[in-house]
Amino acid sequence: MKTESHTTASHGHLVIIGGGEDLENDKAILARFVELSGGANARIVVITAASGIADEKWSDYDRVFGELGARQRVHLNVQCREDANDEQHIRAISEADGIFMTGGDQKRLLALVGGTALDAEMHTALKVRGVCIGGTSAGASAMSGHMLAHGRADRPEKGAVSLGAGLGFLHKVVIDQHFSERQRLARLLSVIAANPYLQGIGIDEDTALVVERGVGIEVLGEGAVTIVDGRHMSTNISEIDDHKTPELIDVRLHLLPAGSRYRLPQDGEASRLPAPLAEFLENVTRRNPNS
Amino acid sequence: MKTESHTTASHGHLVIIGGGEDLENDKAILARFVELSGGANARIVVITAASGIADEKWSDYDRVFGELGARQRVHLNVQCREDANDEQHIRAISEADGIFMTGGDQKRLLALVGGTALDAEMHTALKVRGVCIGGTSAGASAMSGHMLAHGRADRPEKGAVSLGAGLGFLHKVVIDQHFSERQRLARLLSVIAANPYLQGIGIDEDTALVVERGVGIEVLGEGAVTIVDGRHMSTNISEIDDHKTPELIDVRLHLLPAGSRYRLPQDGEASRLPAPLAEFLENVTRRNPNS
Repeated sequence: MKTESHTTASHGHLVIIGGGEDLENDKAILARFVELSGGANARIVVITAASGIADEKWSDYDRVFGELGARQRVHLNVQCREDANDEQHIRAISEADGIFMTGGDQKRLLALVGGTALDAEMHTALKVRGVCIGGTSAGASAMSGHMLAHGRADRPEKGAVSLGAGLGFLHKVVIDQHFSERQRLARLLSVIAANPYLQGIGIDEDTALVVERGVGIEVLGEGAVTIVDGRHMSTNISEIDDHKTPELIDVRLHLLPAGSRYRLPQDGEASRLPAPLAEFLENVTRRNPNS
Repeated sequence: MKTESHTTASHGHLVIIGGGEDLENDKAILARFVELSGGANARIVVITAASGIADEKWSDYDRVFGELGARQRVHLNVQCREDANDEQHIRAISEADGIFMTGGDQKRLLALVGGTALDAEMHTALKVRGVCIGGTSAGASAMSGHMLAHGRADRPEKGAVSLGAGLGFLHKVVIDQHFSERQRLARLLSVIAANPYLQGIGIDEDTALVVERGVGIEVLGEGAVTIVDGRHMSTNISEIDDHKTPELIDVRLHLLPAGSRYRLPQDGEASRLPAPLAEFLENVTRRNPNS
């Protein structure tokens, strides 16, 4: 079985891309995705369900992954929920080494895939077989259990942003993309203000947060990853009306530029993690208890 | 002497406006400026030195302050540094109850006024006579000792923003304006990353941070005041090249919407201040030792 190496070597990776990743030049982020999937022999499945122009998206990624040396590339074209329960599609996932979710609209992706056999098989692929799952833009937002569905805010605003149910490869976080380019901190703070249970992750374009389950994180690409943590915050949000700006005292903000790399301390090693990041790291790298 | 009431009743106010304040409708922020200056009988001096269109600015504020009931209004038209040492101009400041600095370019304002007799007389007016000093946009940025002079950043960037020497009515802070509207958090974080000695104050349009020296602060208007505090932060900024994004761990962010009001505990009263705000409040309300 060709995924043998993954089963033993990796607990699974997530490559969470803020959209706008380089498809033309060194393609550094997608190259890493291919590498983490196993390289030239990896079987890569592209899920275009988020997009209304699935064939175009497939054509782009088919080309790029081919240029990056991946010889086995499969388009998993999900147009309806029946497609996402289709046996042949499920088999494609069960044989995949890398699974890539394109951009589009994360609500569309979840409406088509959420709760289907395909969804379940992706969890098995990640948690049991340790494959690499990548997603860009909508495909990035969809990775967390609580998904930033839609909404905008010029400044933090009660009720401005709606959450939905995402795929749940990560928990206790919410992911936003095109982060610096679309100036989305106010939108992410709007989520955190009302949901301090969640830590916000904002990923810039052509930038990826790579999570190695059980091991650590790394930031790749051209921009940065912004983390906002409202767990220490005090706020009046429960007392104000919708569309008003809440008072927020003591939100913790971390900025991790490309090149940042943090690992959990291994086997008795002393932790060199900055304390404010330790819990974030433990959370996002956590392996599911039933994996 | 008509400023008698101020001498006894007030240690001075700063009305720090993020630009774009309402000049046409209820004019709530400028109404408060007039009220804090002493109301209908207040003598209000308008300094247009930041602006290249001084007469237009004067004409706007002359009208608005008139509509708000202030009967004595004076244009202090500083076109060169000699004007800022002119005896008649100094006398205008020494007789003022309210001093208002218009928008324009804070570098221009400081180049014309910084270190002049007019500058010194404004400090006396604030600290000895307890007048009210207002400033909008450039006039707001100019109020701190370290002044955000110019620069822009889509994400925090080393070397993206230049500081200059401001008027110094406040210390250990740096002020930015048009904050949410021009999405300036990245620019303010760029300053804080390199200058964690300073706390960043970002003020939205049609929004004012009102500082009552020795007493407390209040946020007025339509938007919010954002405070970023890098004192607990760890960063690699000293190791990276210019124009790169620094890693920032544990920046503290506070958002104070209009209506927020905080007072220092008075005479033995227990503090009800949120701890993360206490030091900020003590700093901005501090009266100069020699006042």
